[in-house]
Amino acid sequence: MDVIAPPHTPGLPLPLSGETRLYAIIGDPIAQVGSPGFFNAAFHRLGVKAVLIPVQVPAGGLEALLRGLRAVRNLDGIVVTIPHKIAVMPFLDRIEPNGCRVGAVNAIRVEKNGSWCGDNFDGVGCVRGLEKGGHRLSGRDVLIIGAGGAGRAVTHAFADAGITRVRLCDVDEARRDELAASLRTHHPALQVETGLAEPEGFEVIVNCTPLGMRADDPLPVDPTRITRGSLVVDVILKPPVSRLLEEAKARGCATQAGRAMVEGQVEAVLGFYGFPAPPPAPA
Amino acid sequence: MDVIAPPHTPGLPLPLSGETRLYAIIGDPIAQVGSPGFFNAAFHRLGVKAVLIPVQVPAGGLEALLRGLRAVRNLDGIVVTIPHKIAVMPFLDRIEPNGCRVGAVNAIRVEKNGSWCGDNFDGVGCVRGLEKGGHRLSGRDVLIIGAGGAGRAVTHAFADAGITRVRLCDVDEARRDELAASLRTHHPALQVETGLAEPEGFEVIVNCTPLGMRADDPLPVDPTRITRGSLVVDVILKPPVSRLLEEAKARGCATQAGRAMVEGQVEAVLGFYGFPAPPPAPA
Repeated sequence: MDVIAPPHTPGLPLPLSGETRLYAIIGDPIAQVGSPGFFNAAFHRLGVKAVLIPVQVPAGGLEALLRGLRAVRNLDGIVVTIPHKIAVMPFLDRIEPNGCRVGAVNAIRVEKNGSWCGDNFDGVGCVRGLEKGGHRLSGRDVLIIGAGGAGRAVTHAFADAGITRVRLCDVDEARRDELAASLRTHHPALQVETGLAEPEGFEVIVNCTPLGMRADDPLPVDPTRITRGSLVVDVILKPPVSRLLEEAKARGCATQAGRAMVEGQVEAVLGFYGFPAPPPAPA
Repeated sequence: MDVIAPPHTPGLPLPLSGETRLYAIIGDPIAQVGSPGFFNAAFHRLGVKAVLIPVQVPAGGLEALLRGLRAVRNLDGIVVTIPHKIAVMPFLDRIEPNGCRVGAVNAIRVEKNGSWCGDNFDGVGCVRGLEKGGHRLSGRDVLIIGAGGAGRAVTHAFADAGITRVRLCDVDEARRDELAASLRTHHPALQVETGLAEPEGFEVIVNCTPLGMRADDPLPVDPTRITRGSLVVDVILKPPVSRLLEEAKARGCATQAGRAMVEGQVEAVLGFYGFPAPPPAPA
């Protein structure tokens, strides 16, 4: 069931009034974010008198902004994007266990009592996208390239979804090993290894690095070594289909691009905010 | 030309994206404000990628909110309503002369260099409404009841519009006399007097008090003493037609209710924000 995309009219909320409830996405830059498009269309389809606005705030202004938003009585939630996903954490009253283990928050919910609760839906979004695409994760062997924010979120969510074995790769060995230790703590049954980005023997390969955003980036993994029939996942949003995914498709692999992960995230964050899944967009 | 009302679809902006520019109306309470309805419909008709959102902030949170909004890079303006019109002034970089003499600000513009400039459009809004209604102010004798924020704004704007004589009435004699002194300073040719709310001899009578919002309020002026053919103006918004205006109409007077003043304000504030008058709403 494709509840989020394509939105009937991306970004169109219901008419605003003094009673409209507020959601904000905070980041810097902000012009490129897709959340206003997705969330407002969902609010419209749900018949919710709410609007999600883009708020551009540089790192140096984050604390002042958050203290200001604390004073706003009709604010119900904040979506957090680069570069604030870690920096917001000290300003929250509560962080869900998943947000803690990932070490980053991408959604804040304002509770009825005014307190702020944060969690991270980057990984869940990726898993939801794969589920919608008919891909099973349970029992799979997975290669994760990149142990930064996206890598941490995706790997924990994949472990929740029942993968059997994971290999973590990162040029930053310290953060790679830190993620490995965290996985062993939170998922004792999971086989965790660290090593090179060699795809042989893995049924699922996930790029969690920014490699591929620039035309001259090297590929995060050698596509000629990927087993035919594997599932290749990329988290980057631009270009919409990365060169890695193009090469993987050409070799008969199933793929998932970053947009599916974002759509999965939006759905998960709407749930976190207490909304049901919106009805499907008209055909 | 009725450029603001009725909006085609009150409150409906263009679809939002990461590039949408922000305007906010700040006040407490906020559910009753009309600005989101008016401004968003105007942005839609103008084809402007902007949204005006309602922001409810109590007096105790105002400073934190303003410091937070200073950090927002895609904020272009703030409309200010009760109870913040005076309290915002110390946080501005510049106040236009009209805002200074009125002693209150109801619109803040974020300049290209990031500085904040405030002004007051309550009085201008009232004058614009009267102009649209075909009422001339130049050369008139005017009775103003109430020397609070609305009274100060309206009287200065009426003086700008060329009235000849004004009588100011307020149970608070100190603020009445303060407004009289300010008028004498800013409009040396205007005949300024203070006294009772006796309408005989005045062609225009303006209620700038809150009297009439509650069903059991006394009338601000005795309607039986108003000269037939006078113009009676009320600033209150609820009820849409006050008992004073009903009584005045029954006595053959022309009237203007608070909504026309708000519509005139919206148009004036849009101009302050650099927008042309929007094209008329479709019939």
